[in-house]
Amino acid sequence: MSRTSFFSDMLQTIADRGRRFLSLGPAREGEADAVDTMEGLCETLLSSRGEASGMALAKNILDRWQSFDPQQRRDFVIVLLARFGPDTERLEQAIENYRAEPNPKALLELSVAAEPRRQELIRRLNLAPNGIATLVRMREDLLKFKADNPDLAAVDADFAHLFGSWFNRGFLVLRPINWSTPANILEKIIRYEAVHHIGGWDELRLRLAPEDRRCFAFFHPQLVDDPLIFVEVALTREMPSNIADLLTEDRAPIRAADATSAVFYSISNCQEGLKGISFGNFLIKQVVEDLRREFPRLDTFATLSPVPGFAEWLLRERRAEISDALSAADRSKLAALDDPGWADQPQLLASIKPVMTAAAAWYFLKARNRNGKVVDPVARFHLGNGARLERINFLADRSGRAMRQAHGLMVNYLYKLDDIETNHETFATRGQVVAAPAIRRLVPADKGPRSLVPVPGVLPPDVQSSDAARKKGSKEFTS
Amino acid sequence: MSRTSFFSDMLQTIADRGRRFLSLGPAREGEADAVDTMEGLCETLLSSRGEASGMALAKNILDRWQSFDPQQRRDFVIVLLARFGPDTERLEQAIENYRAEPNPKALLELSVAAEPRRQELIRRLNLAPNGIATLVRMREDLLKFKADNPDLAAVDADFAHLFGSWFNRGFLVLRPINWSTPANILEKIIRYEAVHHIGGWDELRLRLAPEDRRCFAFFHPQLVDDPLIFVEVALTREMPSNIADLLTEDRAPIRAADATSAVFYSISNCQEGLKGISFGNFLIKQVVEDLRREFPRLDTFATLSPVPGFAEWLLRERRAEISDALSAADRSKLAALDDPGWADQPQLLASIKPVMTAAAAWYFLKARNRNGKVVDPVARFHLGNGARLERINFLADRSGRAMRQAHGLMVNYLYKLDDIETNHETFATRGQVVAAPAIRRLVPADKGPRSLVPVPGVLPPDVQSSDAARKKGSKEFTS
Amino acid sequence: MSRTSFFSDMLQTIADRGRRFLSLGPAREGEADAVDTMEGLCETLLSSRGEASGMALAKNILDRWQSFDPQQRRDFVIVLLARFGPDTERLEQAIENYRAEPNPKALLELSVAAEPRRQELIRRLNLAPNGIATLVRMREDLLKFKADNPDLAAVDADFAHLFGSWFNRGFLVLRPINWSTPANILEKIIRYEAVHHIGGWDELRLRLAPEDRRCFAFFHPQLVDDPLIFVEVALTREMPSNIADLLTEDRAPIRAADATSAVFYSISNCQEGLKGISFGNFLIKQVVEDLRREFPRLDTFATLSPVPGFAEWLLRERRAEISDALSAADRSKLAALDDPGWADQPQLLASIKPVMTAAAAWYFLKARNRNGKVVDPVARFHLGNGARLERINFLADRSGRAMRQAHGLMVNYLYKLDDIETNHETFATRGQVVAAPAIRRLVPADKGPRSLVPVPGVLPPDVQSSDAARKKGSKEFTS
Amino acid sequence: MSRTSFFSDMLQTIADRGRRFLSLGPAREGEADAVDTMEGLCETLLSSRGEASGMALAKNILDRWQSFDPQQRRDFVIVLLARFGPDTERLEQAIENYRAEPNPKALLELSVAAEPRRQELIRRLNLAPNGIATLVRMREDLLKFKADNPDLAAVDADFAHLFGSWFNRGFLVLRPINWSTPANILEKIIRYEAVHHIGGWDELRLRLAPEDRRCFAFFHPQLVDDPLIFVEVALTREMPSNIADLLTEDRAPIRAADATSAVFYSISNCQEGLKGISFGNFLIKQVVEDLRREFPRLDTFATLSPVPGFAEWLLRERRAEISDALSAADRSKLAALDDPGWADQPQLLASIKPVMTAAAAWYFLKARNRNGKVVDPVARFHLGNGARLERINFLADRSGRAMRQAHGLMVNYLYKLDDIETNHETFATRGQVVAAPAIRRLVPADKGPRSLVPVPGVLPPDVQSSDAARKKGSKEFTS
Repeated sequence: MSRTSFFSDMLQTIADRGRRFLSLGPAREGEADAVDTMEGLCETLLSSRGEASGMALAKNILDRWQSFDPQQRRDFVIVLLARFGPDTERLEQAIENYRAEPNPKALLELSVAAEPRRQELIRRLNLAPNGIATLVRMREDLLKFKADNPDLAAVDADFAHLFGSWFNRGFLVLRPINWSTPANILEKIIRYEAVHHIGGWDELRLRLAPEDRRCFAFFHPQLVDDPLIFVEVALTREMPSNIADLLTEDRAPIRAADATSAVFYSISNCQEGLKGISFGNFLIKQVVEDLRREFPRLDTFATLSPVPGFAEWLLRERRAEISDALSAADRSKLAALDDPGWADQPQLLASIKPVMTAAAAWYFLKARNRNGKVVDPVARFHLGNGARLERINFLADRSGRAMRQAHGLMVNYLYKLDDIETNHETFATRGQVVAAPAIRRLVPADKGPRSLVPVPGVLPPDVQSSDAARKKGSKEFTS
Repeated sequence: MSRTSFFSDMLQTIADRGRRFLSLGPAREGEADAVDTMEGLCETLLSSRGEASGMALAKNILDRWQSFDPQQRRDFVIVLLARFGPDTERLEQAIENYRAEPNPKALLELSVAAEPRRQELIRRLNLAPNGIATLVRMREDLLKFKADNPDLAAVDADFAHLFGSWFNRGFLVLRPINWSTPANILEKIIRYEAVHHIGGWDELRLRLAPEDRRCFAFFHPQLVDDPLIFVEVALTREMPSNIADLLTEDRAPIRAADATSAVFYSISNCQEGLKGISFGNFLIKQVVEDLRREFPRLDTFATLSPVPGFAEWLLRERRAEISDALSAADRSKLAALDDPGWADQPQLLASIKPVMTAAAAWYFLKARNRNGKVVDPVARFHLGNGARLERINFLADRSGRAMRQAHGLMVNYLYKLDDIETNHETFATRGQVVAAPAIRRLVPADKGPRSLVPVPGVLPPDVQSSDAARKKGSKEFTS
Repeated sequence: MSRTSFFSDMLQTIADRGRRFLSLGPAREGEADAVDTMEGLCETLLSSRGEASGMALAKNILDRWQSFDPQQRRDFVIVLLARFGPDTERLEQAIENYRAEPNPKALLELSVAAEPRRQELIRRLNLAPNGIATLVRMREDLLKFKADNPDLAAVDADFAHLFGSWFNRGFLVLRPINWSTPANILEKIIRYEAVHHIGGWDELRLRLAPEDRRCFAFFHPQLVDDPLIFVEVALTREMPSNIADLLTEDRAPIRAADATSAVFYSISNCQEGLKGISFGNFLIKQVVEDLRREFPRLDTFATLSPVPGFAEWLLRERRAEISDALSAADRSKLAALDDPGWADQPQLLASIKPVMTAAAAWYFLKARNRNGKVVDPVARFHLGNGARLERINFLADRSGRAMRQAHGLMVNYLYKLDDIETNHETFATRGQVVAAPAIRRLVPADKGPRSLVPVPGVLPPDVQSSDAARKKGSKEFTS
Repeated sequence: MSRTSFFSDMLQTIADRGRRFLSLGPAREGEADAVDTMEGLCETLLSSRGEASGMALAKNILDRWQSFDPQQRRDFVIVLLARFGPDTERLEQAIENYRAEPNPKALLELSVAAEPRRQELIRRLNLAPNGIATLVRMREDLLKFKADNPDLAAVDADFAHLFGSWFNRGFLVLRPINWSTPANILEKIIRYEAVHHIGGWDELRLRLAPEDRRCFAFFHPQLVDDPLIFVEVALTREMPSNIADLLTEDRAPIRAADATSAVFYSISNCQEGLKGISFGNFLIKQVVEDLRREFPRLDTFATLSPVPGFAEWLLRERRAEISDALSAADRSKLAALDDPGWADQPQLLASIKPVMTAAAAWYFLKARNRNGKVVDPVARFHLGNGARLERINFLADRSGRAMRQAHGLMVNYLYKLDDIETNHETFATRGQVVAAPAIRRLVPADKGPRSLVPVPGVLPPDVQSSDAARKKGSKEFTS
């Protein structure tokens, strides 16, 4: 079907359905052709009439979408894929012209023709009041459907493309979160916290109100009550080696002005629908800058971070026929881990600690996943930001989750401002993990990363790699 | 040059120039290779290192650009055209794959490959503090260069594309401008006013402070002190027929609650660099809505607008060998216009008024430019918004500019909420001007628009048409 | 001691103690002469030097006071009484002059001379940053000491006098309290709620977040985080007859726009130190006005209020040898109240309800305390505001406190705007309780208020009466 | 008339005039008994009914007052004096009781009885929306009437007393005034500037917008758009010796961070009705503190101030038969001042400068007015604040007013934080002017202040003195 005929058809369709669209309320329950109607509304929104009545139309479409049941939502996403891609006829004409004469004008027309019509559709949907919040939820859905239907990647790419523009760092606002923050935002902090569970308002108060605690979040001007990402910070006299010291209820706060270290002990993304849009990097650097200005005595900026992939990896190594990471002796000692109560047997700890610590060093420095990446998602995030792996902390978190995921292990990543850029490049372009000497010494020097499958003749795909890290992202890459 | 080799070269270049970039300050005067250096910095910003140091790099690039002289800025734009378009090798591969198997995945890759690298570059430049303000000024420059070099349309398309996303109506904030507005914003109102000159603070006060005057502007959250567009409104008891009644200093304000009409007598775009990004349509409709809520007695929403293209068109008709618009008798009467003092000769006015009014009716209803569009840019704007041409006002503005451009003529456009959509479609899809019966009667009914060159078998290209109107836009389409 | 010699002495004292005062920090623990030092500092603050260093001195004094133990605080209040009253010598001279020639000048001098020096002292203490908050706490203490030492009424009068000026309604700010209010303010709402206990954040959310709930508080510009008084409001379809309907967790909120009644079900004063400074009257009227503007459909403004003095009064009547309020039959039926489980025995309720309701009508309409006032403090507050006693609700609150204080009884007071002034005057000048006919019918008409001891030849002391009501005030007169 | 009978009468009056008061609008023009009606309304406001309807009544009274003509306003002030003083009968009773037994209770009752009823009346008038603004204007009027009728001092004392409480420093808010300040406030800065005339918005911009200029004002929370007092500050590299250097249009601003001096070159009180309520002292000290925090490099805080009393004093000395200040030779040289063009004759300046400078030193250090005070009101203000007279600047301001008032002389006062208190006491208690050595050397050391008439055996009445300085105050004591 040529674009022209398609366009005429579309106009015809609109004429047929007529003004009816605009006077429609939200979809009635059980409306047979609800998704068809939506398609028509979307076409109208893209048409010239959409220019005159864009806000009302956009609102109508989003209201309807919110009343959709899961099957209708899935159908609608398919419509977006099938009917709102690039205008293929125009695209083919543009390709032909470009091949005939590859001048700037032809190239421009090709770029324009290759852009899916979805992008303009999404932009116009954003005209609705509070449109962006609904669009973020729409993508949250989309990501679930995409898991079953890889073709939907094309639809997702358009959302991601626009969200990348709209949630550009230049538009985000950093706001401190504290005990003077409105309750409706604070209850979201409780709900979104993804690293160290907040058990209620009293626990929240302990994380926000004391003088030696800080919290910061990024907000978007159009989502005023809903944080995008937040980080919790402890001001301390030294880099902490376990989480209990930070979170225990009966600790005595220190004077903020006496602190020398700022510890990022929890970073949580808040919006599933913004997966892959990277904020964490900017957040940490901005917070480091702000804290340095407020407290000139601060000289150490570090995390206390979980190691969510460690237990699974370790189990694989323990069961593998051959493991470079673990000797037979190591395996034998680690067998004790199969006893759920191992951590409460002091006599065991002394023998397990050195083995587990060395294994962890190997896990970070040598182990790679099948994409040739560092296995641990949190490590990929912080190392990709230019931090250095600073210390491995044995039995640093005895919570159920930490015991399951990492046998209680935590690590510190160190953000040293002068080294961030070099560290980042070492990691991003050469794939090397920057670690403190004490950690490096735990791993034999002569061997490169083990399971890395080198792709011959190709540089490490640095941009994609960090993209991949990001896409793992969302609630996973938390510190 | 293949993308791979280019990329390697680029990496090499970066390696060569090394860390130097990051420590560079603003360009030194007379720096020989300032534009080359900029190219390198831009490549770095797009590279993986740009992810780690994006904000600093973006700031450095924008600072340097601000210190550029006009020739350097022109050269830089050429670099953007030549070096930051789509990756052509990847594009060709994508075309081939798509032709081989036109599935969603191939289409997606084609869309991605066709996107110029400039877009990501511009997005990353926006990381700099206050980046968007500088980018808007960068496009202001670009538009000047584009006038001489049409190939730059490709670069401009990328700016326009991103600005379209960033300045999406969903992100704009409507704020009233009044005598409690900060002075630094008010001085911009004085400066940007493009329709009826504001002679200073005392004149400004007369437009803002009285109870029967209102002003509204759109702002972007990242440009807090700089309006994008504003409209001045007079609350009156009737639709005014000349500007002096509205602006005279010694008038007695009426009580706002007694007004029945809201008159939009001046709309000015503020940012040259946002040319073609349409706000006016949304602004007027939002203001209508807000005023209706505040003053339920208001029943008439209209403009008092200039007719900037009338005098030029009339002169052409008067000199044309054949004119459908003017009879010989008409021409003879209009000869009096060649006397600069005609407007002060009461005896002349009686004979000129009916002829000029009828000619104006023709000008709006029948005259078309060579693109088949209504000649008058202000008319295109308001009619495109769904307004109706309501009344032609003879000698309604005796200011120098109005006399030169329109022999003092002004018109009212009427915004009737219930008709806006129909009016818009009549105009946009059929090219017909919706006008009050009294105006329509002034023009013989049997003839269609005169200079329209019909493109056989094709509907008037509605989307483009309004795009064209917009692009004329900026300070021209003011009411 | 003459004023002159006193003043010289004082200057001498200051000279002796010298600059030492200003460099003193907060009082050292166990400092023997801490209160003497305070006296010196206060004199200095009143002296000319106080003009130059007022803020620092005031801060020093208030810091010291905060470090005082209870005995020191008590001693300090005695110093305020003994040493910072009016200058008696000057006062006597002024009296003499006034008696000699009672002209305006002499009268002015007498007024000035009669003003205790404490007033200027308190005014100057307010120069300290956050001074007013400390002064309010100082009076909180003072009220406790005054209970044992009636002479301190003179000191209290000065605090009350100044607080009356500073917390004048003209300076208070009404702010809605809702789920977007900062947490540090909300936790005070939980703490200060004095009528229906708030068990934690989840209960608070149920009172603030639903669409049919509102809360408003008065704030002072200098006490931004600390409410002075707040009222909780339920928007309902009818005047409620028991508290459970309002507070139950699983109720379905109604749309606010559908409500016809606004029910003030809890009013709490927050600051003990502001006892006797009346806000509640203004608060209720302001909230009524604001709600009427927001919801024009509201036509009923009423309370659901406790009856805190009822059980005690009833017991006295039941035990009295003679009671006009209760017949022998009544007493016999009410004997069931001595069984703590009476309220759970349905068969009892039918016989108790009419007797208790009639006794309550008598309690409001006829019973008077020994000052001739209505017994119930909440009744005095609302009737004094011009409300009408509208309905008596049997077993309307089964909480422990309500059962103890009022056998579960609650009442509605009705605020009918057109009648407020008349009602107020009827109550204030004639001592008559305005009640709904259904209530009046429960009490024999021929008898006046029973225990009122008429003071012959004197009008009911209206101003004092409401003063007295107020002074009972604070957490007691809550609805 | 006894209080009781008066009170009964009053009640009767109110009963007679009845509800009429409350329904009265603003006074009708030519209303015969407008002032009588006001008296009745004021009595009602003080009565118990005033408690119920205070806000409406207060608004009514203030609206009426605003519609009063000057004669009515004068009559109303007389009513305030005659009818709203202390209740004399109660006062006499209190005096008797106090004389019989001077215990705390009797003293308290005496204090209360001696307070004029006006004070409570003014407090209740403040209930009206925006009441305080009207009350300030009411006192502005009152001050004019008082000039002719000294008895009105009693009424003024009550206003001053309450304003002293309400405008207590603890309630004032310091806000920077700059080019982002709302225009309605900035136009008041133009209007209120009392030292160096601001010729319009362009001149205002030059004082506010440059990086090395600052302006600060005190605001009251209830008068949000109206500053109470403001100070203009120049950040400079040295203490300036003439005003032209600061105000010239074409000067090049310095970087604020490079400044070492902050120069207060203009202080203006804004509200005539707040005469005698002292803000300037606090303003300067607060601004010094704020600037020091923002710019740690600042080490000099000084004024460049006018000398408004100099020319008049000098003329008196020149014409006096005997002058200790001027020798015959001095007088002969100063005769040149009678030629209006003297300042433009370079040859004259050399001879006049030393004589005039020495005379000015005498003027500050020795001359006293008949109250024994320093003659110059600006000097009294700054010296009373603890500043030091630092430098005398010949021909430092050639504006008409400065030439007339001070033959163009200006001075610098230096605010040295460590010395402020000592300086203040030296000046306040010993009447000595603290001046730089270079100035002291210009005056013979052996003589005390010349025209001081010592009051035998009495210390200089320091508090009153600074009161007097203040009362001169308002627009006069500007720097």
